[in-house]
Amino acid sequence: MKFYSLPNEIPENMLQGMALTHPHLTYLDGTGIMYDNQFDQNHVPIISGGGSGHEPAHVGFVGKGMLAAAVTGSLFVPPKAEYILQTIRQVNHGKGVFLVVKNFEADLLVFEEAIKQARAEGIDARYIVSHDDISVNVYNYHKRHRGVAGTVLLHKILGAMAANGATIDEIQAAAFELSVHIFTLGVALAPVSFPNQKTSFDLAANEVSFGVGIHGEPGYRIEKFESQERIAIELVNKLKHEIHWRHHEHFNDFIILVNGLGATTLMELYSFQYDVLRLMELEGINVVFSKVGNLMTSFDMEGISLTLCPVRDDKWLTALQAETSAFGW
Amino acid sequence: MKFYSLPNEIPENMLQGMALTHPHLTYLDGTGIMYDNQFDQNHVPIISGGGSGHEPAHVGFVGKGMLAAAVTGSLFVPPKAEYILQTIRQVNHGKGVFLVVKNFEADLLVFEEAIKQARAEGIDARYIVSHDDISVNVYNYHKRHRGVAGTVLLHKILGAMAANGATIDEIQAAAFELSVHIFTLGVALAPVSFPNQKTSFDLAANEVSFGVGIHGEPGYRIEKFESQERIAIELVNKLKHEIHWRHHEHFNDFIILVNGLGATTLMELYSFQYDVLRLMELEGINVVFSKVGNLMTSFDMEGISLTLCPVRDDKWLTALQAETSAFGW
Repeated sequence: MKFYSLPNEIPENMLQGMALTHPHLTYLDGTGIMYDNQFDQNHVPIISGGGSGHEPAHVGFVGKGMLAAAVTGSLFVPPKAEYILQTIRQVNHGKGVFLVVKNFEADLLVFEEAIKQARAEGIDARYIVSHDDISVNVYNYHKRHRGVAGTVLLHKILGAMAANGATIDEIQAAAFELSVHIFTLGVALAPVSFPNQKTSFDLAANEVSFGVGIHGEPGYRIEKFESQERIAIELVNKLKHEIHWRHHEHFNDFIILVNGLGATTLMELYSFQYDVLRLMELEGINVVFSKVGNLMTSFDMEGISLTLCPVRDDKWLTALQAETSAFGW
Repeated sequence: MKFYSLPNEIPENMLQGMALTHPHLTYLDGTGIMYDNQFDQNHVPIISGGGSGHEPAHVGFVGKGMLAAAVTGSLFVPPKAEYILQTIRQVNHGKGVFLVVKNFEADLLVFEEAIKQARAEGIDARYIVSHDDISVNVYNYHKRHRGVAGTVLLHKILGAMAANGATIDEIQAAAFELSVHIFTLGVALAPVSFPNQKTSFDLAANEVSFGVGIHGEPGYRIEKFESQERIAIELVNKLKHEIHWRHHEHFNDFIILVNGLGATTLMELYSFQYDVLRLMELEGINVVFSKVGNLMTSFDMEGISLTLCPVRDDKWLTALQAETSAFGW
C-alpha cells in the first residue's frame, strides 16, 4: 500500500508541506503555483511544471540558480492554462520569462495557451520544448521525443545562466542548442500502481520493459531480465547511436544523469551508475559531470533512465556545478 | 522486480559507483570502507557504518561537516571488526576518533571489538550508541531502543561540531546529551522484499504496521489503514508521551525528521510532513528545523518514520544548518 493524495486534485498537502519545510518557497493556495520568494528580480525567471507524481520535479528544482517557479497539476495531469498564466505574471519583472515544457500533447496545449495570453498582455514569454526521450512508438516506429529526465539538465543549466545575468535572448539561444544534445532512455522493472486502480501495464517479476515514459506508459520492448549490466549496455548503445545519428560527429566529454523512476533505491542507482561508467571508460568517453538520484520520477515506478549529453559548450558544465538552493537537486 | 547486489556480499559496485560519482569519496576496494579524502586532519573524525541497505546511510553522510568515513557490510549485516578497525586507523590523526553505532546486537559486537583493538593500539577511540527507536517488543513489552533514523541527527550535529574544531571530549559530551533527546517511531505500509526470498513480514494491502525497524523487522501492532493523518497523530502522540516520560519537562523548540523507509515517494513524505506540522502547531510546538527525505532506509520498505528531538542546546541547531559536502544530506 502507499499513501496517496487524491489523484484528481492538486496535491495540496504535499505542496503546503514543501513550502513549510523550505523557507525560500512560497505556495499560492489552491493553484499549484510555488515560487522562490528570494528570487533576484534583475534576472530572467525560468518556469517549469506539469502534472504531479514526478517529485522532486518540479517544485524540488525551484530555488536560486534553478527555477523561479513551478506549477503543478494533479497526478500526471498538467495544470490549467490559467494557473500557468498566473505563474508567468507572478515572476515577470520585465526581463522576459522563459518556460521549460516537457513534450507531451496535454502539456503543450495548456502551456502554449498560457504563453499566448501572456504575450497578449505584453510579457516577453518564450519557451523550449524538452524532447530528450529517444524511445520509439511500437505501433508506427516513430520516435516519441517525449520530455523526460533530461529536462532537469535544462532546469539546472538555464537556471544557473539566468542567475549569472544572462538575457532572455541568451537563455533562449542556449536552450535551443542544449535541448538537441540531451538524450534519454528509460527501463522499467515494475509498472506504476495507480491509487485504487490497476497497474499502468503488465510486467512479470522477471521482465524489464525498455523505453518507458514518466507517466506509466509501457515501453517498446519487454525482455527477460538477464543482468543489470546487460541493461546498461542496451541503454548506452542506443543512446550512443542516436547521438551519432543526429550530430554526425565525435564528442569527447559527456554529462550523464542516472535517474530513478520513483521506487528505485540508491543501491540500485549507484550499482547501475558503476556499470555505465565502466562502459563509458571502455568507449573512451570522458564523463565530466554525473548526477545520480530520483530526480524525475514516474510516481512509484521501479526503474531507471539514463541521460547522455555531449558537451558542446563548456558553459553547460560551469552551470551544472554552480550552487543552488533547490532541495531536489 | 528490483536490481539487487548479491545480498551476502559487500555491495562493491554500489560503493565504487558512489566513489566515482563524488570526487571527495575514496573507496578501499573489497573492504566496505569509504572515507572523505578532503578531511581536515586538524579535526576529530566521526565514523559510522553498519549493514548496507540503508542508503543514503551511511556513505551518503561522508563529507565535510558530517562523517570522515563510513564502513559498510552486506545487506543488513554489519561489517567485520577488522574493517571497522581499519577504518579507525585510516582516519586517525591523533585527535581521537569518535564512532556512532546503531543499537543492534550484531553491530555492537563488531564495533566494540574494533574499538577495543584500536584502544590497544593507543588510539583514543570513543563511541556513542544511538537508540532513538521508542517501539516495544510485543513479546515482553520491553522498549527496543534500536538505533534508527534519528542516528542521522547524530551524524550531522557531531560532524558539524567536529568541523568547527570541537575536541573529542566535547564531542563525546555532546553525543551523550544529544542521544537521549532523539526519539523515533516508524510505520510500514509494505514489508521489505528480500532478493529471491519472501517478504520480511506479512501485511495486507490495506494494513499498516506500527513500530517497524530498519531491517524489515515487524512492528508491535498491525492496524487497518484509515488515513495518513491518523498515522501522524499516532506517531506524534507516542513520541510526545515518551519525551515527557523521559525528561519530565516542557520543551518549546523541536527538530523534526520525516524519513522514508526506501520506496516512499516525496509526495507521500511531504504530505505526511504537512500533517505532522499541523499537529505540532495545534500542540503549540515550535519546529525550528525540519528535514524530509529517504535518509535511513530499510532497503525497499514502503513506510515512514518520524523523529522528534527537543532542542536542549542551540548549538544543535547551528550544527544542523551548517553546510556539508555529503551527498545524502
